[in-house]
Amino acid sequence: MKALSLYGPVQKEMPRVEESIQTIARVEFPLLALILGEILKHTGKRIRPAITLLAGKFNNYDLDLLVPMATAVEVLHTATLIHDDMIDNSLLRRGNPTLNSVWDNGTTVLVGDYLFANSAELVSTTGNVRVMRLFAQTLMTICNGELRQIFSSGNWRETREDYYRRIARKTAGLFSMATESGAVLGGAPEEQVQALKNYGYNLGMAFQVVDDNLDFMGDEAKMGKPVGSDLLQGTLTLPAILFLEHYPENNPIRRSWENGHEEESLREAIAQIRNSSIIEDSFSTAKDFCNRAMEALRILPNNACRRSLMELTEYVLERKN
Amino acid sequence: MKALSLYGPVQKEMPRVEESIQTIARVEFPLLALILGEILKHTGKRIRPAITLLAGKFNNYDLDLLVPMATAVEVLHTATLIHDDMIDNSLLRRGNPTLNSVWDNGTTVLVGDYLFANSAELVSTTGNVRVMRLFAQTLMTICNGELRQIFSSGNWRETREDYYRRIARKTAGLFSMATESGAVLGGAPEEQVQALKNYGYNLGMAFQVVDDNLDFMGDEAKMGKPVGSDLLQGTLTLPAILFLEHYPENNPIRRSWENGHEEESLREAIAQIRNSSIIEDSFSTAKDFCNRAMEALRILPNNACRRSLMELTEYVLERKN
Repeated sequence: MKALSLYGPVQKEMPRVEESIQTIARVEFPLLALILGEILKHTGKRIRPAITLLAGKFNNYDLDLLVPMATAVEVLHTATLIHDDMIDNSLLRRGNPTLNSVWDNGTTVLVGDYLFANSAELVSTTGNVRVMRLFAQTLMTICNGELRQIFSSGNWRETREDYYRRIARKTAGLFSMATESGAVLGGAPEEQVQALKNYGYNLGMAFQVVDDNLDFMGDEAKMGKPVGSDLLQGTLTLPAILFLEHYPENNPIRRSWENGHEEESLREAIAQIRNSSIIEDSFSTAKDFCNRAMEALRILPNNACRRSLMELTEYVLERKN
Repeated sequence: MKALSLYGPVQKEMPRVEESIQTIARVEFPLLALILGEILKHTGKRIRPAITLLAGKFNNYDLDLLVPMATAVEVLHTATLIHDDMIDNSLLRRGNPTLNSVWDNGTTVLVGDYLFANSAELVSTTGNVRVMRLFAQTLMTICNGELRQIFSSGNWRETREDYYRRIARKTAGLFSMATESGAVLGGAPEEQVQALKNYGYNLGMAFQVVDDNLDFMGDEAKMGKPVGSDLLQGTLTLPAILFLEHYPENNPIRRSWENGHEEESLREAIAQIRNSSIIEDSFSTAKDFCNRAMEALRILPNNACRRSLMELTEYVLERKN
């Protein structure tokens, strides 16, 4: 399944979003232009801006509002990745060196701030108080999720509920902002806004669960980062939590973190998780979130946009990197 | 002259702003609460939120709008200081260790982001599109100023105009946002909004010029940082630019930066600047900005708020740290 066909009803407008993203890299400082060009180049699937446009096409499809909003969603996402990689000391993302691995911390933090500022400015051009407020609240939500991750690092007592709370803030908040803002700017009635927000939230939850599964199961070459990198960095994701639930006695994760992060025990845990049915269990959780996302769409008219959003849930489950 | 009496007509509302600032430190993670409490504790003069309230008191003094806005101004200021200190690798600010000198980069960047997000959220509670847009534009402006500083670091060819452009973005932008937003939320007619914005801009320019003078002339103990720290870090401020203008031949700054930042030559430059009339010249520039700030206030009614704003220009010129 190709992302291209998934975005069907909004496919021909995606280049406008892309152009708007690229505009941000055109700055007067050549070195900054180079850095921004590298970061903003089209490598991902642009799923977040695509669902903004899709959510905005059920009623008044106003591209003068939706294109800046969709751009802001993607740029905010990029800004959070830059600061996240710095916070986690990550050296690779999708096989490419992270900004913090190449540049000093000052440049890294400032480039992230610059993208935050750009996204806020783009949202403000819509002149819509509701989406401007939503944007500010989403910034808070994402920071809160990141803070939860930092302050729970190395805590083997974290539960599934802690995990869901964390990814709801860290990932699903941005997905639900993407669809809610699209619906609001597209003049959707409140019932549709809530349905699309709900869809975005659940799609985001599924997306993150799959991401966390891929961290254990993905092909290192395709993922462009080492297997089990979250666990090695001290972050518990769903597979690790399920593993701790299933094997509470003498669990290698607990053993490692109680003994000053022994890497050998963590590698043992990663191997055990990979060779168990835990990933299947975790995957069925992602499916549940996708089912809820599809369920939320039921009240929307059965048109090409709804079909695209439905199909996106399959794409999220099927992706391999 | 005490700041307390300067804020006369809004003095009794300043504790509401203070309380609102302190609320931000009340978070569920004890360590974060500790860090935020330390950063947000009342040590500075809170001049930025004070001018927001003063600018907001000429017409409809609505504290439900002005207190969140004034809080946002101060919190945004604090967030920028945290990221700036990290970018500049500064170890001390006002005699206290900076966040980046105590905590790892991840925590530092995230605490800054959290404060950015809080300030955006506070502005969004006003529900006023104009100030929300102004806030986003100011974020852009500040980042732009910081980028100019990074990309001009170690360039002895910088001119006064480059310097003014840079501090206009880095400092005056936030001061003018403080007064413009206060005026807008206080329901001022457009002519007054522009006058107060203009006042804030010029006050901010004067504030930064004085700050940059104090970096050369201030008492190290009072300033809580080494004399000439900007120049030592590769940043040209007005005194150094005037020194390069006056002595273009065999200038120690140029010599240092052309020879891989020789510290000895920079210390020579600092001593020469301290023992010349350059600081007086630079100070008269600050006075000019203050005169423009006062001039801008002429169209406003001659009341206690205007008198306070007038007196603040003296405070900015007289401050010693």
